[in-house]
Amino acid sequence: MVLFRRTLGEVLRSARMQRGLTLREVSAEARVSLGYISEIERGQKEASSELLASLCQALDLPLSVVLREASAAVAREEALAGLVTIERPVALERPARAVVASAA
Amino acid sequence: MVLFRRTLGEVLRSARMQRGLTLREVSAEARVSLGYISEIERGQKEASSELLASLCQALDLPLSVVLREASAAVAREEALAGLVTIERPVALERPARAVVASAA
Repeated sequence: MVLFRRTLGEVLRSARMQRGLTLREVSAEARVSLGYISEIERGQKEASSELLASLCQALDLPLSVVLREASAAVAREEALAGLVTIERPVALERPARAVVASAA
Repeated sequence: MVLFRRTLGEVLRSARMQRGLTLREVSAEARVSLGYISEIERGQKEASSELLASLCQALDLPLSVVLREASAAVAREEALAGLVTIERPVALERPARAVVASAA
C-alpha cells in the first residue's frame, strides 16, 4: 500500500535539503516544532492541511509543486507494484516444471 | 491559503460521481463510515494516508492520479491568488486620483 505521508515526507525533506535549510530554520519560519517537522519528513506523522501550507510557505514552494512531485513519486511506486502483479501470471506457469522437478 | 483537504475532497467526490457510485457503495467497499467519507469529500476532515489508500482502491483510482488532479486544481487556485497579488501594485497607483477626487 502506497502511503501518501511517506511520499510527502520525502518530497518535503528533499525540497528542504535542496534549499540548504536546516530543520531548525524551517521550524522557526513555519512556526511548527522541529520534532513534528522531522516526523512528517520521515512519514511518521500526517501533516494537517494548514501545517502543509505553512511548510510550503516556509520552503517557498507552491503546494501544487509538492503535490506534482508526490504524484510522480507515487506513480513510480505504483509502476513497481504493477511489475510485481504482472510477474504473478508468469509465476503461475511454473508449477508444470515444478511437477516435473518433483517427479524427477 | 489553499488547503489540501478541500481540493482532495473535490477530486474524490468528482471521481465518485464520474463512476456513478453512491457514498453508501464507496463506504461499503472502502469499509469507512459513510459520514466520514462525506466529511472528507466536503473538505471538513483530513483523510489519513491509510484511509486515502482505501478510498482510492474503492474508486479503482491510482493515488498518483488523485494527487495529479489535486496538483492541477491547486495550481489553478494558486494562479488565481497570483492574479490578486499582481493587482495590488495597480491598486497602489490609485491614491493619486483619489487625492484629486477628494480635493475637487
